[in-house]
Amino acid sequence: MSEVTSQRRARHHEPEVAAPLPPLRWWGWGDRDGEIPEGLAAILVDELGIDGRVLHHPVAQEDVLIDASRFPEAAHAELSDALGGHVNVDRRHRIAHAAGKSYVDLLRQRAGRPIAAPDAVVSPGSEADVAAVLAICERHDVAVVAFGGGTSVVGGVTPLRGSHAAVIALDLRRLDGLLDIDPVAHIGRLHAGTLAPAAEAILNRRGFTMGHFPQSFEYASLGGFAAARSAGQASGGYGRFDEIVTGLRCVTPRGTVVVTSLPPNAAGPSVRQMILGSEGALGIITEVSVRLHRVPTTQWYEGWSFSEFDTAAAALRRMAQARCLPDVARLSDADETRLTLAMAGNAADVMKKLLRIRGHANPCLAVVGWDGEPAAISGRRDAARTILREHGAVRLGRRVGESWKAHRFDAPYLRDPLIDRGVLVETLETVTTWGRVHALRAAVVATLRDALTVDGHEPLVGAHISHSYHDGGSLYFTVMARRDGDAVEQWLTAKRRVNDVLSEHGAAVTHHHGVGTDHAAWLEAQIGTEGMAALRALKATYDPAGIMNPGKLIPA
Amino acid sequence: MSEVTSQRRARHHEPEVAAPLPPLRWWGWGDRDGEIPEGLAAILVDELGIDGRVLHHPVAQEDVLIDASRFPEAAHAELSDALGGHVNVDRRHRIAHAAGKSYVDLLRQRAGRPIAAPDAVVSPGSEADVAAVLAICERHDVAVVAFGGGTSVVGGVTPLRGSHAAVIALDLRRLDGLLDIDPVAHIGRLHAGTLAPAAEAILNRRGFTMGHFPQSFEYASLGGFAAARSAGQASGGYGRFDEIVTGLRCVTPRGTVVVTSLPPNAAGPSVRQMILGSEGALGIITEVSVRLHRVPTTQWYEGWSFSEFDTAAAALRRMAQARCLPDVARLSDADETRLTLAMAGNAADVMKKLLRIRGHANPCLAVVGWDGEPAAISGRRDAARTILREHGAVRLGRRVGESWKAHRFDAPYLRDPLIDRGVLVETLETVTTWGRVHALRAAVVATLRDALTVDGHEPLVGAHISHSYHDGGSLYFTVMARRDGDAVEQWLTAKRRVNDVLSEHGAAVTHHHGVGTDHAAWLEAQIGTEGMAALRALKATYDPAGIMNPGKLIPA
Repeated sequence: MSEVTSQRRARHHEPEVAAPLPPLRWWGWGDRDGEIPEGLAAILVDELGIDGRVLHHPVAQEDVLIDASRFPEAAHAELSDALGGHVNVDRRHRIAHAAGKSYVDLLRQRAGRPIAAPDAVVSPGSEADVAAVLAICERHDVAVVAFGGGTSVVGGVTPLRGSHAAVIALDLRRLDGLLDIDPVAHIGRLHAGTLAPAAEAILNRRGFTMGHFPQSFEYASLGGFAAARSAGQASGGYGRFDEIVTGLRCVTPRGTVVVTSLPPNAAGPSVRQMILGSEGALGIITEVSVRLHRVPTTQWYEGWSFSEFDTAAAALRRMAQARCLPDVARLSDADETRLTLAMAGNAADVMKKLLRIRGHANPCLAVVGWDGEPAAISGRRDAARTILREHGAVRLGRRVGESWKAHRFDAPYLRDPLIDRGVLVETLETVTTWGRVHALRAAVVATLRDALTVDGHEPLVGAHISHSYHDGGSLYFTVMARRDGDAVEQWLTAKRRVNDVLSEHGAAVTHHHGVGTDHAAWLEAQIGTEGMAALRALKATYDPAGIMNPGKLIPA
Repeated sequence: MSEVTSQRRARHHEPEVAAPLPPLRWWGWGDRDGEIPEGLAAILVDELGIDGRVLHHPVAQEDVLIDASRFPEAAHAELSDALGGHVNVDRRHRIAHAAGKSYVDLLRQRAGRPIAAPDAVVSPGSEADVAAVLAICERHDVAVVAFGGGTSVVGGVTPLRGSHAAVIALDLRRLDGLLDIDPVAHIGRLHAGTLAPAAEAILNRRGFTMGHFPQSFEYASLGGFAAARSAGQASGGYGRFDEIVTGLRCVTPRGTVVVTSLPPNAAGPSVRQMILGSEGALGIITEVSVRLHRVPTTQWYEGWSFSEFDTAAAALRRMAQARCLPDVARLSDADETRLTLAMAGNAADVMKKLLRIRGHANPCLAVVGWDGEPAAISGRRDAARTILREHGAVRLGRRVGESWKAHRFDAPYLRDPLIDRGVLVETLETVTTWGRVHALRAAVVATLRDALTVDGHEPLVGAHISHSYHDGGSLYFTVMARRDGDAVEQWLTAKRRVNDVLSEHGAAVTHHHGVGTDHAAWLEAQIGTEGMAALRALKATYDPAGIMNPGKLIPA
């Protein structure tokens, strides 16, 4: 940065920004394919009858069919004027903002014919810009879909027009960087369009971390985390993102909701908790204040094995209820563990031998981890290890934990090459009380098996508990199946059936993916008629014209 | 309980209840006066010129003047019919429900001429009763003030009619007892009218505790805790009541909000967090699901001394940010410590000698405590003690901690005899970020000194941090001054000035007392115009006629 630039920054209070990663592929994840491990390839052959030939290619971008933009000319002119440009109606921008990253999103983008693209992509550079965009869009009856990192897997960024004349994607990535840090309160204030790796990079330079590492970490934005109530892999220690956010600003068509960053207090119902989870349906989160921690001097992650899942879940429960849950605590069921071990190949040979000796015929692998100063870690680790041992767990050592940590953002990179090869590959998640975890896992697995068995090939369904709480645990399912018939409908049918099962079991419609389009029809089953009435009341107050992300969160 | 009763209970799923404490005196706290300690009496003489003669007696109940009930005859008849009685318009009931327990409440009740009593006291016995009451009241334009334990110190239960024809106190204490326990998830479901000691007694029998012990513990109800976002003395360990409540039912004039008890999840904005803190202005909380803990096998409370307040506050901050905050962590400033030591009299002699040796001329006393199993306590205690020592604190031992614990509900009992003797005695509280604690404490103390110095006698103002968070700490002030002129106006003038100071410093209008009438005018300064718009939208949705606790939380 030149001195002049530096001075200008200081004068204008421009935020500090960090270099972005290469952009996401418009039809997939990241900028590269992951490599399908040999062990997984063998299982695909043996159990799904999928031989690894590439059967499906994404179409070239120039071959994608999209409808002509319906963006009103007057709106275009006004927006360009208000934002000094930054309004794009070209194919490239529209296609890149046409979908999130669910399996169905990927299928549709890859097929490319036709895809529902936004009529324009608008990129505000300030909170005032955002307010101007909303005013202009309301006047011209244009729906507004907030677009941060674009990593939603529940249809959160699908460009639905609803009843409106047109729809724009409001790309927030120019709202980028750190505004300030309170080094005493350990609170940072950042623009909501900042992507997570950039935020961490900036904070790390000052010795801080948010400690928020969901699988979408590499491409997700802070505003997206807040709007969708993200949970990260270390949320046991650092808290969910709705706990990390202590303050925010949210621009609505009727004014800006300002939640000042303050410690917990008794000043009435929580306005903060009304905006968190609002998924762009009330307004646009432009700024978040987040809780910071000193970058840990030590990270200690280790593997453990249990002989069966229910005892292992009881160990997680016991740690949570005894307030000695590790910062990371993740437990795979036997089916997921089998896949994990297969994918690790020879690297897992020693471990497999150990597990045979200990009599773990169908082991359930757990990864537990602690961040902090060695002395502080040591006490918490001892308390947790005591409980793990009491539940019959066998310690596999640090290498397993470190390996998990090293590869924890890899899974999404595998989806594209798997889809190429005709694999249906998707995840879904929920959370329920501890007493219901067992039955719910069985029911969801059975539902997925039933819905996705193709030509006698049962799907591979693995589950893990990624987040443990005092009263319950999340369940995260990964499914791989033979693609069959109308691939979109194949999955949506299975997904609908699972949503029904979640409702029947009284489980949450989502633990951390959010509501979006995919769960909206099931939200009322969880929060009730009067809960929906509250959401509609807030919507009517802040967005009376209904232009904000129509069809998401609140069903039309 | 006879076998027949027991069987009937089982059949009708009647809740298990516990025997109540003797009722609160209508004009004061508890059922008895506390004894003013000699050391405090001496300070009152020396510094406030108050010699201990009783100057003010509460009037006899038969001499209290109240207006005739305006309760509409038709409403009375309909309510009596719907509830099978349980509608009282007699003096005794009306007077007992005429006020909460703030200093001004006590002054007004004691003076007894005239007091604003509710037009009737209605005691529903079921959630269906509550719904019936709200329907009848809406039809007859009668305002409804929720009344649990009646311990509000911010005007939360003041029977304001607002623009309505009449006002009732809705006494919830018949909604009493435990509904069920989930022994796996450690969640209990209780009627909201259950008083805290009864709830603890019932839960303790099953080996559980909520761990919620605010100073109002002996007389407050669970619904009140939830409606006013209570925080307890051990909230550092067990969480604030808004964290303890995992589910609830709230009857509004437009339907019942049902928040199913589930672990944290991403299903949109939090409806739970819209009802918590709603202070009876949206509806009546009839049931709460609460997080339970095993009754701790050990409670270890100990005293520490710091040579000055700011370093001590830094120690609390450090413990909170290092995630090793004790379950109880309470720090008095030098002025509060002086009063505490004076009140302890000879019992504190050894401690005073120790502090002299260590050079703590103006010591700041801290009480820290841990609940749990000895092994688990030990690790957390070591981590905290290391930080305490790093900040120059001197350990005073377990007796100081145990003494604090033994007397922690005593303070309210002192107010009545102090008021008898012409002492203005009141508390107020807030929370702010760590960097602002010092200046805020100084500003509030200065404001109280300036407002309440009478005939050259400066008030006694003590402060403590009762709750520490990652980003900030609460400040709780206790003031004793010479009563002067119009005693009500004397205090309200000081209180208004403090509220302005809190707003100017960007501090919360309340940390755990709630908004009520006393903070309502300052709420918008904290949550903003658009925050208020959200509260009004919820109010309009659930209570379009505006009969629910008018004038509280949301200013008219």
